[in-house]
Amino acid sequence: MNAEIISIGDEILIGQITNTNAQWMAQQLNLIGISVKQISTVGDNRDDIIRIFSEAKNRADIILITGGLGPTNDDITKQCLCEFFNTKLIFNEQCFEDVTRIFAERNLEMPAINRGQAEIPENCIPIRNKNGTAPGMWFESNPNGIIFVSLPGVPYEMKAMMSDFVIPELQKKFNKNFIVHKTVHTQGIGESSLAEKIKEWEDSLAKHEIKLAYLPAPGQVKLRLSAEGINQEKIIQSIDKKITELRQIIPGYIFAIEEFGKEPETLEKVIGEILRQKKKTLAVAESCTGGYIAHLITSIAGSSDYFNGGIIAYSNEIKINVLKVDAKTLDDNGAVSKEVAEQMSDGVRKRLKADFGISTTGIAGPTGGSTEKPVGTVWVSVASEDKIISEKFNFGNNRERNIRRASLSALNLLRTLLETNS
Amino acid sequence: MNAEIISIGDEILIGQITNTNAQWMAQQLNLIGISVKQISTVGDNRDDIIRIFSEAKNRADIILITGGLGPTNDDITKQCLCEFFNTKLIFNEQCFEDVTRIFAERNLEMPAINRGQAEIPENCIPIRNKNGTAPGMWFESNPNGIIFVSLPGVPYEMKAMMSDFVIPELQKKFNKNFIVHKTVHTQGIGESSLAEKIKEWEDSLAKHEIKLAYLPAPGQVKLRLSAEGINQEKIIQSIDKKITELRQIIPGYIFAIEEFGKEPETLEKVIGEILRQKKKTLAVAESCTGGYIAHLITSIAGSSDYFNGGIIAYSNEIKINVLKVDAKTLDDNGAVSKEVAEQMSDGVRKRLKADFGISTTGIAGPTGGSTEKPVGTVWVSVASEDKIISEKFNFGNNRERNIRRASLSALNLLRTLLETNS
Repeated sequence: MNAEIISIGDEILIGQITNTNAQWMAQQLNLIGISVKQISTVGDNRDDIIRIFSEAKNRADIILITGGLGPTNDDITKQCLCEFFNTKLIFNEQCFEDVTRIFAERNLEMPAINRGQAEIPENCIPIRNKNGTAPGMWFESNPNGIIFVSLPGVPYEMKAMMSDFVIPELQKKFNKNFIVHKTVHTQGIGESSLAEKIKEWEDSLAKHEIKLAYLPAPGQVKLRLSAEGINQEKIIQSIDKKITELRQIIPGYIFAIEEFGKEPETLEKVIGEILRQKKKTLAVAESCTGGYIAHLITSIAGSSDYFNGGIIAYSNEIKINVLKVDAKTLDDNGAVSKEVAEQMSDGVRKRLKADFGISTTGIAGPTGGSTEKPVGTVWVSVASEDKIISEKFNFGNNRERNIRRASLSALNLLRTLLETNS
Repeated sequence: MNAEIISIGDEILIGQITNTNAQWMAQQLNLIGISVKQISTVGDNRDDIIRIFSEAKNRADIILITGGLGPTNDDITKQCLCEFFNTKLIFNEQCFEDVTRIFAERNLEMPAINRGQAEIPENCIPIRNKNGTAPGMWFESNPNGIIFVSLPGVPYEMKAMMSDFVIPELQKKFNKNFIVHKTVHTQGIGESSLAEKIKEWEDSLAKHEIKLAYLPAPGQVKLRLSAEGINQEKIIQSIDKKITELRQIIPGYIFAIEEFGKEPETLEKVIGEILRQKKKTLAVAESCTGGYIAHLITSIAGSSDYFNGGIIAYSNEIKINVLKVDAKTLDDNGAVSKEVAEQMSDGVRKRLKADFGISTTGIAGPTGGSTEKPVGTVWVSVASEDKIISEKFNFGNNRERNIRRASLSALNLLRTLLETNS
């Protein structure tokens, strides 16, 4: 089974945005055993769109299209699909209800222009869009025919429609084999060091027909194990056995195992689950991470059950006046120090009446470093009622990455404390 | 002049990497007045590569190819170019010296496999690669013929070869026209409502030969104006005139004008610049946004100059004890209310000794809503020494988007206050 991905939009051709949709879609298709043969981008131009549809039809079994479904005049994908399939737009009641609902939910009046979004080509099945006003469309000329799928270009709308409808439908139709993917999430070790530590284990995967992929992201490395076959249970057992082995090789670094199709695992989610289970609460005191830890924690629905709040102490004055860091300690050791980090984590825990406190203090950069404390120097600390621990890191020069890595390191320190503190 | 970009590599088709090369190349071509008609990605497969070369040749004047030039067996672009041009590989002394030098510089012995990298098709001009071992290739069948350029896929090698050789050569040959793009960033208005408000203005663009594109992102809409011609200054004037007109039609919604090729504009950057210029400071009190506003502000390098810090008041207790919100006000109106939002923005301003305070309080969801205050209900407020303003919003059901939209709305409210408060 071959697929092609077609992205439509002038904004890609002039280089204004990166085509991240195509990458994500390619990943999802590959994960269910469908190979992508070509990815093409054309502009919002009738001739180019019709041509690329025809070309793709001659090469692929499945054609996924994104973009050009907005209500404005520059969006013409739907008109092109009608022309290509020699059909016409018809008003779809269900789509209209969805469009109307989106506006109602936002307490907005629906502009006349959006009514047209409920019109879809007569020969397609609408794909509901719960996050936006443009419905997706599924075209299938006959039971064994080529499938065209048209989705909006807004990434989170497209992703939800892919996960909820397109991927399950394609898997039902095309994949007789079971493909199992499990992803091991690690934190606190770089890709090369990890590869060295697990070399022998990695070499042993081949004889179990398990494929391994390293998926590095700033501050974290994921290992995806994949295997394919007709006996799903056997494949899962085989992968699980290898993960158990891996846990024994790198016990401190693994924080989650993610199953494909399930929500992605994150450190903030794992921590939230432990806190909820232990009925404990958390507060954060952030200097160099500037609110990013709190943002990660509160991105989890229901986090108000265990997250009291936080203090972003960007200035020393706030560290002293609100977090009750000792002024002399600050003066003697500087803000970026073990002593200040520990007073911050313990201070915020007490001040915001939480069971656990997290803190960060460091130099995010790109300026503000010194020879003794260069950009990327970060202290993180975690305090509980009976223990205060801390750790020093030296990250690089990139502000965005330093903020993310410091935040994940602080969360990971909390995780290790939570897991030992039972 | 039309160009096409062809990326070659299985790693893109399986979704392992994002095709950032194509975006960068498209940008560079547009800046010298060459439009990109199509971007295609195919795998390291002979048939697909030859086919896409033939297709591109029938559509474009310039074809830029990246990838597939490594020394290993899976890299076959060079062989395919030979077959396509019906020519053969010949050993090139200059290329060999370059490959040898790269290894010498790195103090490495050259593996035998790399000798082959000095072989290039007979009909091409080599493009020197100062950062890697694969030379680029420039094919031009006759003085007015179609140009094929093949470059390595390693981004920093490709970029240097583009900047040093390809772009200057193309500009010499083709650039009769300039293309100018400017992007207007708006906040606080949806795509459809915006389209209605500016319909007349939009219709007037055609006679100035200006093209308009809507680029929506969660909570924000960008409008890109593009025009092409031989007189760059005149095009810029014509676009600027239209932007001035637009400012009069939707004065409250525009927060930045971005020029193509410059760093993208964000609301947090614009606000940072205003605060720095006015020598004013800021503090935030976040409930439903959970630290995201602070994160946006502190993602800007140098924000410690104007950002004092913040209080994340997830619990009512923190609202009362730290922000000094009146317990009775909370009780009478609930946490999600104008009164509480205003006490929070003013409270944090005073407590953290800042000139301006921002606050948010709302129901991020997906649960916690009521009939009176459904999920997505958010109050934002901004306080200065002499003024407290607030605004109510009804967003949707998506937690992540509610957090982002509430944060941008709060920042936008601050922007409007900053711009009137001179």
